[in-house]
Amino acid sequence: MMIAKQTQPEPKNLISSEKMESFIKRIDFKKGEGLVPVITQDTRTKDVLMLAYANEEALRLSFSTGVAHYWSRSRRALWKKGETSGHVQNIRLIDTDCDSDALLYLVDQIGVACHRGTWSCFDSVSEEHERAKP
Amino acid sequence: MMIAKQTQPEPKNLISSEKMESFIKRIDFKKGEGLVPVITQDTRTKDVLMLAYANEEALRLSFSTGVAHYWSRSRRALWKKGETSGHVQNIRLIDTDCDSDALLYLVDQIGVACHRGTWSCFDSVSEEHERAKP
Repeated sequence: MMIAKQTQPEPKNLISSEKMESFIKRIDFKKGEGLVPVITQDTRTKDVLMLAYANEEALRLSFSTGVAHYWSRSRRALWKKGETSGHVQNIRLIDTDCDSDALLYLVDQIGVACHRGTWSCFDSVSEEHERAKP
Repeated sequence: MMIAKQTQPEPKNLISSEKMESFIKRIDFKKGEGLVPVITQDTRTKDVLMLAYANEEALRLSFSTGVAHYWSRSRRALWKKGETSGHVQNIRLIDTDCDSDALLYLVDQIGVACHRGTWSCFDSVSEEHERAKP
């Protein structure tokens, strides 16, 4: 079934298992009781799309599937961004900061990032995005 | 003393007191026990520079002085970014997200953002910044 394969591509590892494990080991999940904040930025526009949280499983799934996963604090559940809306975020790079207590997901945003239907969860970013449209 | 005045400009309000109070009232400081995460982004390059935290006082000072203030979780103290290094962040805009539980500071970064001497606290951003230099 070629079509199925095309619409649901095989999971792709962004980096090798060894590099992923070494990266995950560095992250300070303790400070935030198992969670670290994640800044999500669109690769093309460099717009900041949202701030969310990841636990270790969400980070691992983001690496291993290549699409952004988070931990929803309100639903207290693992959250594959865009699972119902289709507005997934294809990950290009995952980075951490100097204290290893925050993450940066660089993504190709499909559709829009915010559940309100706006490009970004930050209004000023969405407004700028609208103004920049040709 | 004109020089003193030039190096220490008068505080400038980014927005009116009424708008500032209304903005601050919207922010959900309770969720994070008095703190909200702040994404700091450079206006010119759109690079993400750091993730830090603000309490109400830090946010208020950021608005009223026009330079970025945070709450240092490690030192448990108000933190005027660049106070010792001179690497201040002149704020162009402060925004919040759809849940009002995260902030975005759009800044003109003077010098570098990271205490390690790198442009950003995120290595991939600093590396990209170095590559982009003419």
